[in-house]
Amino acid sequence: MNYDVLVIGSGPGGYVAAIRAAQLGMKVGVVEKESLGGICLNWGCIPTKSLLKSAQAYEYAKHAADYGVSISGEVKPDFGAMIGRSRGVAEGMSKGIQFLFKKNKIEVISGFGKLTGKGSVEVTGEDGKKNSYTAKHIILATGARSRELPNLKQDGKNIIGYRQAMNLPKQPKSMVVVGSGAIGSEFAYFYQSIGTDVTLVEFLPNVVPNEDEEVSKTLERSFKKMKMKVMVDSSVESVDTSGDLCKVTIKTKKGEEKVEAEIVLSAIGIAANIENIGLEEVGITVDKGKIKVDDYYRTNVEGVYAIGDIVHGPALAHVASAEAITCVEKIAGLNPHPVDYGNIPGCTYTSPEVSSVGMTEKQAKEAGYEIKVGKFPYSASGKASAAGQKDGFVKLIFDAKYGELLGAHMIGGNVTEMIAELVVAKRLEITGHELIKSIHPHPTMSEAIMEAAAAAYDEVIHL
Amino acid sequence: MNYDVLVIGSGPGGYVAAIRAAQLGMKVGVVEKESLGGICLNWGCIPTKSLLKSAQAYEYAKHAADYGVSISGEVKPDFGAMIGRSRGVAEGMSKGIQFLFKKNKIEVISGFGKLTGKGSVEVTGEDGKKNSYTAKHIILATGARSRELPNLKQDGKNIIGYRQAMNLPKQPKSMVVVGSGAIGSEFAYFYQSIGTDVTLVEFLPNVVPNEDEEVSKTLERSFKKMKMKVMVDSSVESVDTSGDLCKVTIKTKKGEEKVEAEIVLSAIGIAANIENIGLEEVGITVDKGKIKVDDYYRTNVEGVYAIGDIVHGPALAHVASAEAITCVEKIAGLNPHPVDYGNIPGCTYTSPEVSSVGMTEKQAKEAGYEIKVGKFPYSASGKASAAGQKDGFVKLIFDAKYGELLGAHMIGGNVTEMIAELVVAKRLEITGHELIKSIHPHPTMSEAIMEAAAAAYDEVIHL
Repeated sequence: MNYDVLVIGSGPGGYVAAIRAAQLGMKVGVVEKESLGGICLNWGCIPTKSLLKSAQAYEYAKHAADYGVSISGEVKPDFGAMIGRSRGVAEGMSKGIQFLFKKNKIEVISGFGKLTGKGSVEVTGEDGKKNSYTAKHIILATGARSRELPNLKQDGKNIIGYRQAMNLPKQPKSMVVVGSGAIGSEFAYFYQSIGTDVTLVEFLPNVVPNEDEEVSKTLERSFKKMKMKVMVDSSVESVDTSGDLCKVTIKTKKGEEKVEAEIVLSAIGIAANIENIGLEEVGITVDKGKIKVDDYYRTNVEGVYAIGDIVHGPALAHVASAEAITCVEKIAGLNPHPVDYGNIPGCTYTSPEVSSVGMTEKQAKEAGYEIKVGKFPYSASGKASAAGQKDGFVKLIFDAKYGELLGAHMIGGNVTEMIAELVVAKRLEITGHELIKSIHPHPTMSEAIMEAAAAAYDEVIHL
Repeated sequence: MNYDVLVIGSGPGGYVAAIRAAQLGMKVGVVEKESLGGICLNWGCIPTKSLLKSAQAYEYAKHAADYGVSISGEVKPDFGAMIGRSRGVAEGMSKGIQFLFKKNKIEVISGFGKLTGKGSVEVTGEDGKKNSYTAKHIILATGARSRELPNLKQDGKNIIGYRQAMNLPKQPKSMVVVGSGAIGSEFAYFYQSIGTDVTLVEFLPNVVPNEDEEVSKTLERSFKKMKMKVMVDSSVESVDTSGDLCKVTIKTKKGEEKVEAEIVLSAIGIAANIENIGLEEVGITVDKGKIKVDDYYRTNVEGVYAIGDIVHGPALAHVASAEAITCVEKIAGLNPHPVDYGNIPGCTYTSPEVSSVGMTEKQAKEAGYEIKVGKFPYSASGKASAAGQKDGFVKLIFDAKYGELLGAHMIGGNVTEMIAELVVAKRLEITGHELIKSIHPHPTMSEAIMEAAAAAYDEVIHL
């Protein structure tokens, strides 16, 4: 037996599983075909946040006078420098994982891993050479990739996915972003904010369609205020890439529309990486493109586990990490609670930021709850005023009967940092009044949470 | 009887008391001698946050190139515009209180209020005219002012308090700030960041002396990195204002030192406004400069209450507001819990920011706890890296026996927004493992809270 635990994939599912397993005294190997850290660190969460930080710095510089800062010359985005900073941040994080692996005595096996039987994995190196490894427990954490639609085939040049979008050789003058989930919205925001002419196309009636409708509408207004073209209830029918510019045919409720753009970014979702990793050979059950697992991420084949984007649940880094820890702690004989999929925060790092956890108003009503809803606008927050970020609100949903917090939906400055409070609150089954009576520091935006709770009970002070 | 409730003072204690009382159906009047909103809105929390936001915008503009933003000309602080913005924000907030008072049918009586007996208040207007009012319940919420030392008499020109500090006619070239609590540290940071040559003098061995020592050391390092002169274990002996510059004599552990500066800002604490408000006449008990009250802010005289900076407890806006609500709800016959003074967050809005709640390591040990301490540095946070804010950490203190969270101490970007999570967590008596298993969104700085908890239990992933 080479390993106690062999992990295939080193993203936020895989590397966390490896580190936790090593902590618990197991001998651990990780198979990785590219850079340590997977998509999240190298081509996802981290480098995009760097780009968005650059956009924020540019916004500050552009609007410096509003804050009493005088700039005599011209303020311009240096696209190459922004990309360079982003790549540097990603590289630093990937090196961090290298360091953590070394510290935890985790062996890295470079290449493409494939299950070849119960407890055995074959790894094909870049040179085509194959090596076999055995392990008591094999954790599949192969992640996902940008999903492709037949009428939106990515060529990596004109029609691109998120990977190319964060590493373009030059800033495009115009761009069509297809799909307004977190990835699509963040890129649309980033490019529009640095001066690219962005058209955002969303199939559903609202941008960030998984969010509370009022949040979506507020983000859409904010996008439009920055002169982004937002097309909801619309879908891309075809893209003609034969000319200098892509000619994009978009079906809207009012008929067909043509938009020309240098680049088309497809951000219509992801597809799990479950091909050629030996699932069929070993007989692992797959359902609707995802590997079937139980509460502890055990597949139907003993000793084989799957976590992250290749199993049910939202395809988010923090979910993959939580699954990884739960999976490994169970393997180690500890008694972890299953992950509570009803208490997972989601964030979109546009400006204003968006975050949420738990049920929307609609979902709560559909689930049969009688609800109390409290909303507090940033326009009434002293800190938001002082920060010049008056757009946004906090909306909280409580069960009317017992006062339990059911959901939180926020848009505005800092809300991606503020949502953790509600995750903790929800986990501990906080009631509205417990939240109202938790003293929030003044002046902060987090006071809006306390006030939204108070609003649900007609006790709000600042409205 | 003119009112059910008459409040003297309209700061975050008084105006909140008034609004809550009106909500609960009482007829309410408020006596105010200056602008609605008191010091907090007009000369404290809110306008300083506006100045600090300007400093932040200036920092971004100065370091724009780090983020990939190119600025061809010169970047300069426009001091007048910063002050102007700050005054505008304060004015807007004060108008907001006006609006809330009108909406809640709260009557404003302009002038200086003084208790003249049980249930009666005399108000002296600006014109010297006196009017008398009667009320079933009188709430004293007169707040505090900058404390003066005999060797640091404020003349409002060379030796100033916080009020002048946020409304100076021009940016001073040099400044000595005496006292490094939240107010002193924020002004020291603001002025140093926009180019004033600041010397910060602290009597105790550490800046922000109420904070965890490691936090203090980190802030001191950060101040020194921006070339601020920081003198701890030091006190101002005398200031000679006879020349063009103030000659400040400072006693240090190594002997006397002389520093010259345009302005000396005294920020050595506050003094409660309890003079000439009729306490002696009505026989209200005062102890060590504060009005004595019970858990519901009742003084020894029936029908007279006191809240905010004039009673025990930290002199903070959010404390005053919580006391106000508790006091009024008790008057209305509700059953509010007394304020939990062990769970009050404190924030300092420098950069890096500082926040804390509950016990420090030292306090916990002194209280007889066996403790587990977990610390997570921002240098290991992906979001902090992406944001270019790698300075800082989160430190959590747990009771080793039951795992209960005892205290949280943080320094770094966004920590003033992040502390509310720990307030809620502490209120609900969260354990270390409950915090570790609360899924924090990736990538955020709030993950550092989860990781710090994990560090306390040797389960930290990213260290």
